[in-house]
Amino acid sequence: MKNTVSAILLISCQDQRGLVAEVSFFISTYNGNIISSDQHNDSSGAFFMRVEWDLEDFNIPREKIASAFDPLASKYNMDWSLKFSADKPKIAIMVSKYDHCLLEILHQKHSGELKGEIVLVIGNHEDTQPLAEYYGVDFKYLPITKASKKQVEEQQINLLKDLDIDLIILARYMQILSPEFVAQFPRKIINIHHSFLPAFIGAKPYHQAFERGVKIIGATSHYVTSNLDQGPIIHQDVIRVSHRDSVEDLAGKGRTLEKSVLQKAVKCHLDHRVLTFGNKTVVFD
Amino acid sequence: MKNTVSAILLISCQDQRGLVAEVSFFISTYNGNIISSDQHNDSSGAFFMRVEWDLEDFNIPREKIASAFDPLASKYNMDWSLKFSADKPKIAIMVSKYDHCLLEILHQKHSGELKGEIVLVIGNHEDTQPLAEYYGVDFKYLPITKASKKQVEEQQINLLKDLDIDLIILARYMQILSPEFVAQFPRKIINIHHSFLPAFIGAKPYHQAFERGVKIIGATSHYVTSNLDQGPIIHQDVIRVSHRDSVEDLAGKGRTLEKSVLQKAVKCHLDHRVLTFGNKTVVFD
Amino acid sequence: MKNTVSAILLISCQDQRGLVAEVSFFISTYNGNIISSDQHNDSSGAFFMRVEWDLEDFNIPREKIASAFDPLASKYNMDWSLKFSADKPKIAIMVSKYDHCLLEILHQKHSGELKGEIVLVIGNHEDTQPLAEYYGVDFKYLPITKASKKQVEEQQINLLKDLDIDLIILARYMQILSPEFVAQFPRKIINIHHSFLPAFIGAKPYHQAFERGVKIIGATSHYVTSNLDQGPIIHQDVIRVSHRDSVEDLAGKGRTLEKSVLQKAVKCHLDHRVLTFGNKTVVFD
Amino acid sequence: MKNTVSAILLISCQDQRGLVAEVSFFISTYNGNIISSDQHNDSSGAFFMRVEWDLEDFNIPREKIASAFDPLASKYNMDWSLKFSADKPKIAIMVSKYDHCLLEILHQKHSGELKGEIVLVIGNHEDTQPLAEYYGVDFKYLPITKASKKQVEEQQINLLKDLDIDLIILARYMQILSPEFVAQFPRKIINIHHSFLPAFIGAKPYHQAFERGVKIIGATSHYVTSNLDQGPIIHQDVIRVSHRDSVEDLAGKGRTLEKSVLQKAVKCHLDHRVLTFGNKTVVFD
Repeated sequence: MKNTVSAILLISCQDQRGLVAEVSFFISTYNGNIISSDQHNDSSGAFFMRVEWDLEDFNIPREKIASAFDPLASKYNMDWSLKFSADKPKIAIMVSKYDHCLLEILHQKHSGELKGEIVLVIGNHEDTQPLAEYYGVDFKYLPITKASKKQVEEQQINLLKDLDIDLIILARYMQILSPEFVAQFPRKIINIHHSFLPAFIGAKPYHQAFERGVKIIGATSHYVTSNLDQGPIIHQDVIRVSHRDSVEDLAGKGRTLEKSVLQKAVKCHLDHRVLTFGNKTVVFD
Repeated sequence: MKNTVSAILLISCQDQRGLVAEVSFFISTYNGNIISSDQHNDSSGAFFMRVEWDLEDFNIPREKIASAFDPLASKYNMDWSLKFSADKPKIAIMVSKYDHCLLEILHQKHSGELKGEIVLVIGNHEDTQPLAEYYGVDFKYLPITKASKKQVEEQQINLLKDLDIDLIILARYMQILSPEFVAQFPRKIINIHHSFLPAFIGAKPYHQAFERGVKIIGATSHYVTSNLDQGPIIHQDVIRVSHRDSVEDLAGKGRTLEKSVLQKAVKCHLDHRVLTFGNKTVVFD
Repeated sequence: MKNTVSAILLISCQDQRGLVAEVSFFISTYNGNIISSDQHNDSSGAFFMRVEWDLEDFNIPREKIASAFDPLASKYNMDWSLKFSADKPKIAIMVSKYDHCLLEILHQKHSGELKGEIVLVIGNHEDTQPLAEYYGVDFKYLPITKASKKQVEEQQINLLKDLDIDLIILARYMQILSPEFVAQFPRKIINIHHSFLPAFIGAKPYHQAFERGVKIIGATSHYVTSNLDQGPIIHQDVIRVSHRDSVEDLAGKGRTLEKSVLQKAVKCHLDHRVLTFGNKTVVFD
Repeated sequence: MKNTVSAILLISCQDQRGLVAEVSFFISTYNGNIISSDQHNDSSGAFFMRVEWDLEDFNIPREKIASAFDPLASKYNMDWSLKFSADKPKIAIMVSKYDHCLLEILHQKHSGELKGEIVLVIGNHEDTQPLAEYYGVDFKYLPITKASKKQVEEQQINLLKDLDIDLIILARYMQILSPEFVAQFPRKIINIHHSFLPAFIGAKPYHQAFERGVKIIGATSHYVTSNLDQGPIIHQDVIRVSHRDSVEDLAGKGRTLEKSVLQKAVKCHLDHRVLTFGNKTVVFD
C-alpha cells in the first residue's frame, strides 16, 4: 500500500472480452503504473473492476481523466466512477444516545485510519455533544418527536445538502429514516445494525437473540435503502456467547462488535473498495 | 479431565438457598470427590447444575445412588437425571446422500473422541452403505417416497426402539421427521442445519445466503422438536465468505463447518453437558 | 448476572474430598444464596474455586466474613481471598504515545462496563493528557530518559503507593518496567502485548509478523512478571491478515485487537474471575 | 467461478509500468476472456500476478501458449508458469499413525473438492493402509529406523519420481525429511504443523501450549524447506482453549483444525493460487 497520489476507477458492466486489457491499456498508454487491480465476474455475467494507479507520471491531468476515459466507458456501456486518493470526502455522523460507535469513528479519523473529513455530528439527543466537540467537530442538536419528525428530516436534509456531504454514517442512530430521506442519498448512508442480519431484523435484536438462545451474536454494516435492514451488506462480524450471558451482557459484547464492524465498513467505503449491485456488494479488500 | 469412572448429576429446578451445598454435601458425605461442578442461575429464577464425581471410593453402589438421592431431589422439586461416565449410549445415525457429517461422526467415534456405540446407520439412499460398513456399523436402507413416508417412519421407529437407541443423529438427513416420530424421542434427536439459525430457516439456506449477500455463513446443531428448525440450539459456528463465493463455494465451505459443529454438539451431549429449558440450552463445556 | 451486592471467594489449594461441599455449606449455613460457583481441578492435583453469593440475607456482617471463613481455609490450607462486588478497586493507567488502549479503558469505564475507579494516568509523554482530562482523570507527566529511569520509577512507585492503587494497566506503555517495580505490585499489573504470545516476543512484533509471513496476527494480555512477555496470560485474540497487509496495515488491524483484548482481560480481573498458578491462569468467565 | 476449461498464468517479477496491460492484452488479442485477475505489489517493488482465462474461443492451441507468451515474459524478466484447469496433478500423501489429515484429504478428493489424482499413500506405519485402500489408493508401507532412514528416503524419492508426483502432502508425517529429500521437490511438499507457527516450533507443540497457558491454539500449513518449520506459510487457523483443556483436549481440538487447515492449503495450491517469494507466500484466494 504505497502512500502516493493515485486514481481509482470503479467499474461495473456486462462481462465482455477485452475489458481488463483495454482498461489496463488505457492506463499504461498514458504512463500510469497500476498499483492494484481487482476484478470479479458474477455468475450472472456481470463484471466488476477496481483499478488504482499512480498519478505521478500520468500524462493526463487529473481533471481531464474522466473525459479521456469516457469513450472506453461508452463502448462497454460501463457504470463507472473515478476517485482520487487525495480527495477528502465530507462525512456527517448521525447519532442518538449511545456513543461507542461515534467515538470509534471520531477516534479512528483522529488516528489517521480513516480518510476524509468529519464535518458534522447530528444528534437527536444532546448526550454526545461534548464528545464531538472534544474532537473538534460541529454538533447539531435536532430533537425529534413523532409530530416533528417530517419537519426535522427536512432540516437534516438541508443541512447535509448545504455542507455537500458525501457520506452519512448512522452510528447507532435510533430513528428510522423515511424513504424520502434515503432517496436523497443513494449509497451514501452506512448503518450499523446490532445483529447478524438477516437474523433478528427490526427492534431489540439482543432480546431476540437471548430469547432464541443463539450461541453466537453478530453485527452488520450495510448501505441504507428504503427497505429497513435490507440494504446491501458491506461487512459483518460475530462473537461467541453462552447461557451465562444476560441480555445486558449480549449488548455489552455487541457494542465491541458494532464499533469495529462499522469502522471496517466505513474504511472500505472511503477507500473506494465497495461496489454494489442490486442488493449485494462486491468488496475488494 | 481425569479418566476415571464417575457419576454425573444433571439438575434443573427453581433456585433456592442451599441447593449447591446440599448436593455437594450428599456427594462428600458418601466419600465422593467432586471432579467438576457447574451451575447456572437464569434471570427467571431457574437453577441448573451439573456435578461430576469420582466413584472410586464412593460408598453407595452405582445402582443405589438414584434412590439415595431421591429424597433430596424431592425436597427441592428437581428435574434431574443421573449418568455414568462408563455408560455406553447407543447411537443411530440417519443420513441421505451427503456423507461428510456421517464420516466425521464415524471417524471421531473410531478415534475415541466420542463416547458410546454407533449401532446403526439408516439411509434413505444407499450411497453411504460402504462407508458405514468400512467402520463396521450396520446399514439399513429404507428408501422413502411421498406415499411410503408414514409407513417407513414406523419401520424406523420400530428399529430404533428395538435397538434401545439413546441418541439419533441426523447427519444431513434430508427428510423432515413427522411430529409423531419426534414425539417418540424427546431431546434424543440432534440435527445439523446448514445455516446460522435463525437466519435462513427451511430449504436451500446456501442459496438464500448467496441471494442476501451475507459476508459470513454458519451452521447450527440443535435438538429436534416438532417445530422445524426451532429446537434448542446446542452449538453454532461460522465462516467468512465473500462475493467471490458461488453457491457451490458456500456449500463447500459450509460442509467443513457442518461436520465440526455437529461433532461438537454430539460430543457435548454424550458427555452429559447439555441441559435444556424451554427452547434454550445450558451447555456446561 | 443479578445486580446485587455480593461476596466472592477465590480459593486455590490441593484438591481434597469435601472442599466444594464445605465451602457451599459455609455459605448456606449463614443464609447466603450462591449466585455462581465455578471450580477447576488441574491435572497436577490443584483445586481452584470461585464462588459468589448474595449478601442480602447473609447472617455475617461483611467485615466479619473473613474471620468466620478462616478456620475452614486453614483446615484445607487454602490460598484464598475475599472480594465484594461493591468494592471499587483503584486503577492507574500507564501510557506512552499511543492512545487507543487508554481511550478504550476510559470509555468502557465511563460506559459502566468496567468496575472500579480510574484515579490516575501516568504518561512518559504528554500526548494523552487532554484525553485523560476529558474523562476527568488526573494525568501525571513523568518523562523518562535512560539516565532518569531509575529515579522516575521511584516517583511512579511512590505515586501509586500513596494512592493505594489496586490495579495498574499498561496501555501500550513502551517502557520496560524494572524487576524492582514489578515486585511492588505482584499480580496487580496487566499489560497488553501486540502479538500472539509466545510468538514474536520482544520489540516490533508487527515487523516480525510481516517478515515471517504469518496469516493471522494476535494480541495478548497478561500479568506482568519480571520475565519480559512471560507472565500469566489472561486473554488473547487474533485477526486474519494477508500478503496485502503492509506492516502499517498489521499495526492498524492490531490496534483494534489490542484494545479489545486488554479491555476483556481488565474486565475479567476486576470481576474477580482470574486466579493464577505458576505461570498460568484460570479464568472463570 | 465458472466451470470451464481455463488457463492460468502465475507471474512474479520486478514491478514495471504496463505489466498488467500487456498481459491482459496478450490474452484478449487471441480472443481469451479473463475469468479472474489478481495482482499484488510488494513494498519491495516485487510484482505478483495470477490471471485465469477461458480457453473456449482462445486462438492459440494449448500446447503453443507458452511459446507465444515467452517473448513478453522475457521482456519483463518474469518468473512464470502456465497451468491448465483441466490438468490433473499427481498427488502422494505421506503419513504415520494419525489418520485424520489423511482421511480429510482422501474424503475431500472423493467429494470433488480437490483437483488432481491421489496416486499413492506412503506410510512408515501400516495403520492407515485400510483407509487408503477403502478410497482405492495404493498404499506403500516403508517402515523407518534410525539406521534405515537414509536408505528408505532413497526408496521414497525413487517411488515419487517414478510416478512423476507433482505434490507431496505430509499428513501428520512424523519423520523429519532430510535436506536431500526436500531438495528433490522444491515448493512441492506441503506440511501441516500442529501449532500456530512461529509459536511452538519443533516437537510436542500441544505440550508446549499447555505449559505456556495460551488461550488460543492453532495449526499451520506450509511448504517444506530444509529449515524445519520455517517454510513459507500457506494457511493458518486457530481455536480458543481454556484452563479446562488438558493436553489431550488440546490435541483433540487441534486435530479438527489441522485437517481443515491442511485441506485449505492443499486446495489453494492445487487451484494454482499460491505464489512464493523468499520465505513468504502470496495467496490469491
